[in-house]
Amino acid sequence: MDLLEALRWRYATKRMTGEKIPQEKAGRILEAIRLTPSSMGLQPYSVVVIENRDVLNELQPVINNQPQIPNASHLLVFAAWTTVSDKRIEEYINTIHAIRGTVREDLNKQKERLKSWSTRQSREKLQRWAEDQAFIALGIAVTAAALEQVDATPMGGFDAQALDKYLNLPEKDLHSVVLLALGYRDEANDYLVNQKKVRKNNGQLFETV
Amino acid sequence: MDLLEALRWRYATKRMTGEKIPQEKAGRILEAIRLTPSSMGLQPYSVVVIENRDVLNELQPVINNQPQIPNASHLLVFAAWTTVSDKRIEEYINTIHAIRGTVREDLNKQKERLKSWSTRQSREKLQRWAEDQAFIALGIAVTAAALEQVDATPMGGFDAQALDKYLNLPEKDLHSVVLLALGYRDEANDYLVNQKKVRKNNGQLFETV
Repeated sequence: MDLLEALRWRYATKRMTGEKIPQEKAGRILEAIRLTPSSMGLQPYSVVVIENRDVLNELQPVINNQPQIPNASHLLVFAAWTTVSDKRIEEYINTIHAIRGTVREDLNKQKERLKSWSTRQSREKLQRWAEDQAFIALGIAVTAAALEQVDATPMGGFDAQALDKYLNLPEKDLHSVVLLALGYRDEANDYLVNQKKVRKNNGQLFETV
Repeated sequence: MDLLEALRWRYATKRMTGEKIPQEKAGRILEAIRLTPSSMGLQPYSVVVIENRDVLNELQPVINNQPQIPNASHLLVFAAWTTVSDKRIEEYINTIHAIRGTVREDLNKQKERLKSWSTRQSREKLQRWAEDQAFIALGIAVTAAALEQVDATPMGGFDAQALDKYLNLPEKDLHSVVLLALGYRDEANDYLVNQKKVRKNNGQLFETV
């Protein structure tokens, strides 16, 4: 299935069957997230992967009782950095060194530029920046799932504070931004399954200069 | 090429050749953007598609002289709604009616729910929400380009106010959020072309619950 067919096939599945996604498919979706580009390469987020059925049931009220949760196969929680600490910048620099073998002198300059950049921004602006990058990863995850013929429902509208507390995110200097339920559509019980996709037409969405 | 190969092949191209992308490839990338899911289905953004070489040259200083601009084939400007007006909600409801033929009584309820939701949020929160959706579309555009073997460089770090003014975005109640340059890598002149991709490993990026 090509990308456009896959994007037409997907929809925001409201009821899932409970069937588990094969590990190799889930692995490829996560690998697509891992390969997602990010501003300056910092990947300023973590992704919490929840497969445990009891945890999903416990979380359902926190996620506003959205009906896809109890029968999802996986729930991904995209959690952005709350601050851009020097430690995180240093870890990134160490990762570049490990992968590319770049000399330390050049990396030290890059490190100082990143530290200087993060110091000049407000805390709020840095949080926004980190959250933006998480949404890019969400877009790529949705695409990857569709190409694997796995249903995927992006979800806002949850109690972020309660979810963060449940997942101990604040102590990791993270906060949840957006969720993605993965699983299989329950065709018999999902009223949305046969609805036509509603999108703006080209004239409404694009402007050519 | 499958998705993961495509994502490994792509990189943030810094120098492009100036070669134009065939219209059918550009069309498929835009179609992927059009099919991007969004919160409540509202697609709260427009995408300005710039192909004109003179315009790209004029814009280069506004985009912080980033070197990919003058030889990009297309520059996409993702521009989010600045406010969620009743008019925009009504246009969305009319689109649902046109595509699905949903009865007006049900749509009126949905319209009132959306208006009530937008009234309850701060202006700033609604802007953030609209920008988030634009980043999902960016992620899908990056993926679509990679599958078409088109290079794509997401870009922040531009003078948003100057760009908005140049494109008359404020009078359309839009503001630029993020850019995507599309084109072809200039292998002889791009120092990044043969660099290994730097990404966190699974243990650094994912946490399983």
